[in-house]
Formats: sequence, structure tokens, C-alpha cells
Amino acid sequence: MTANHDKALVLLSGGQDSTTCLYWAIDRFGRDCVAAISFDYGQRHRIELECAAAIAAHAGVTHVCLPIDTFASLGGDALTDRDVDVCCDVDEQTGLPNTFVPGRNLIFLTFAAAYAYQREIGHLVVGVSQTDYSGYPDCRSQTIESLQETIRLGMESRVQIHAPLIHISKKETVELARDLGALDTMAVTHTCYNGTRPPCGECPACLLRAKGFAEAGIEDPLITTS
Amino acid sequence: MTANHDKALVLLSGGQDSTTCLYWAIDRFGRDCVAAISFDYGQRHRIELECAAAIAAHAGVTHVCLPIDTFASLGGDALTDRDVDVCCDVDEQTGLPNTFVPGRNLIFLTFAAAYAYQREIGHLVVGVSQTDYSGYPDCRSQTIESLQETIRLGMESRVQIHAPLIHISKKETVELARDLGALDTMAVTHTCYNGTRPPCGECPACLLRAKGFAEAGIEDPLITTS
Repeated sequence: MTANHDKALVLLSGGQDSTTCLYWAIDRFGRDCVAAISFDYGQRHRIELECAAAIAAHAGVTHVCLPIDTFASLGGDALTDRDVDVCCDVDEQTGLPNTFVPGRNLIFLTFAAAYAYQREIGHLVVGVSQTDYSGYPDCRSQTIESLQETIRLGMESRVQIHAPLIHISKKETVELARDLGALDTMAVTHTCYNGTRPPCGECPACLLRAKGFAEAGIEDPLITTS
Repeated sequence: MTANHDKALVLLSGGQDSTTCLYWAIDRFGRDCVAAISFDYGQRHRIELECAAAIAAHAGVTHVCLPIDTFASLGGDALTDRDVDVCCDVDEQTGLPNTFVPGRNLIFLTFAAAYAYQREIGHLVVGVSQTDYSGYPDCRSQTIESLQETIRLGMESRVQIHAPLIHISKKETVELARDLGALDTMAVTHTCYNGTRPPCGECPACLLRAKGFAEAGIEDPLITTS
């Protein structure tokens, strides 16, 4: 299938990184050629989905939210299973944080590629970063490259996956957001694993975000407006 | 994560190929180490799911069915969208049959790998065949190998994907089913794209199945018992 190389679909989680990617895509492809996609997978912090819709509206792009009810049936991780507490510790057996949903980014990108395939969208943009990847193996450059090849083979799709944050730190992500004019929109993003607003400030996600803003010497609009 | 190399999970669609794979897995890993997984993705031919449960019961293995509501939201293919007719023609734009659900096998295998990951199952078995692959790019050996690598990287999983039918024809699949003692169970399988029982005998799936049995010189138990 010949994809339209002018259209891009951004995986928008409602967080800081994917919001930065949305503005990166708008800068590169133009606002009219960018759409955002989110997934309702039974996440504990459903406020993310409301934030994603607000971010897309703020940025002036269309937004679609697809359901994925499968992860809830798999069970066993802290982000979808309310019987599991979020903590900073790694699972002794797997060596991964207990917020790891096995295969989550693989599934999201594959569904996004299927959505793009049927609409002749040539580019996917995803906010994964291996610099601060918190131990998630599906945020690594190698994984994304391998998935790109799998999608090319499995769908005969030429869709191109962009991961503009893959090699940069949280500090540099904040600076990039500033340079792309995305800082205002950061006020409506959501990061906290505990789903609270204002954010808890103590979970691994809040700590990582705070560190990035502090190192960039920029005030987090989410904190100053909460 | 160290997977138990004795346990296998078979992707059971309720059709002839995955049933043959189930018996292949039982032969290789032993009945007590084999489980079957199916996906309820809003398929038009939901009778497949009843058949899958019946096949697993017949074979004496446990069976789980996971929901995937996402494909129905993607729309546009003949297997999940009731506004699209099943036909033998290929789509002029994509060059693929209109029964192609983009990414279906990639999604199924990735969810199966996530399920296996959380239960320390070391092997996945899938009934794809590139010999008679009907133009589906996600049934090719290259695609499966690439996905295996993507799952290894993205989940830090050592799960091994087996595709015992990948290089054999429908005729040889029928012969393999006979050799594995799976023929009786073929009476409760389902193949017809139109979801009828007895099968329509005219859709591409029925024709391919009939050809395989004819070439093997074996009567199809599904036809003789319908």
C-alpha cells in the first residue's frame, strides 16, 4: 500500500513525552497533517485519557481513542490491576518495575499501524525514550527498529515509526518542548502513576518529571497551575 | 525472565490448521503441558470460538479466550465488518484479499506472548502457513521470525514461536493431522468464512480446505458428519 507520506499519527498518552512528540510532529508535518491516537486499555490513571483529549484540542489536531480490553484480562501489573500497588521496586523474578505491562508499546504501535494502514497515514510518532526508560524493554531503540521491520513485513506497510525522544534525556525533552512552543500545553498533561491531580510528587513518574524540569531550569506549568 | 521450557500455548482459532498445531504441541510437549488460547475480536464467524472450546475439550487441554475489542473499532475488513462482503477478489489498492485484518496475527501473537510471559510459558505454537498463505503477509516465515525478535527485545522474553505448518501445503497439513491422530477432532473445527454449518463450500477458505483433503485422498470429517 502506498501511504501518504505527508500524514502523521501521534501516539498520545496524555503525558509529557507524547505531548512533546505531538508538537514535534506538528512542527515537522504541519498541523493539518497530524492526528493523535490514544488507547483506553483499562489504565488505573484514566485521567490520562481526559488529558489526551484536552491536549489534542489545545494543539488543534483531531484525536481518536481506541479501546483495548485485553490487558485487563491479562492481569498482574500495577497500571491496570487495582490489586497491585505501584512501587519503585523491581519485581525480583523479572528484574522489571511492577508498572511494566508486557508488550504494551508493541500492541499500541501495532494497532496504530493498522489504523494508519487503513487511512494511508505514512508516519507514526511515539514518545519512548531509552535514556530514561525506567527499565521498560519496549522503550529501547532496538525494540522500535525491530517492530518497524515486523510491521513492514506483517502488513506490507511502509509506515515509518519516529521516536524523536529515543536518545534524549528528560532535561532535553523539557528543552525541546520549550523550543517547540509546547510548554503551555504541559499544564494539561498527566504523569503521576497514582492518578492524582495535583500530582502525588512521590511516584517514580512524578520524580522523573520533576528532575527533568529542574535540570532544564524551567518551571513545570502543571505544578505552577495545579 | 526464565520461562518454563516445558509449557506451550497454542493459538487456537477453531480451524483446521490451529487444531493440527494443537495436536502437534500435545505430541511434542505432552498433554499436561499444553494450553490453548483464542481471541474474541468481534469476528463475523463467532462459531469459531465455540469450535475452539469444543476442540480443546476434545483434546483434553485447558482453554482461555481473551477479548480484543479494538479490531471492531478499526473497521473496514470483511471478517469483522458486517458492511463488507467476503469475496475472493483482492482489494485493488492494497493487492490483498478483503479478508485481511491488518496486523491480526501480530496482535494475537503479541498478546499470547504477554499471557505466556506472566505464566512462565516457554513456547507459542501458531498455525500460519506461507505455502497457502492466501496473500496474508502476516503468515510468512520472515514475519514470524521478525516478530519473535521484536517480542524478545520488547518483553525480554525468551518465549519461542513455533509455526509447524509454515512450509507445508494444505495436503501435507491434512496428512500431518492424520499422523497425529487429529482427524476425529476435525469434525468439530470451523473453516468457512461465511460462518455457516455445514460450510458454504464456496468461499476461499472452504475451497482451500476441500483441496487439501482431496489431494491427501482423505475424507473431511467435517463434511461427512455435517
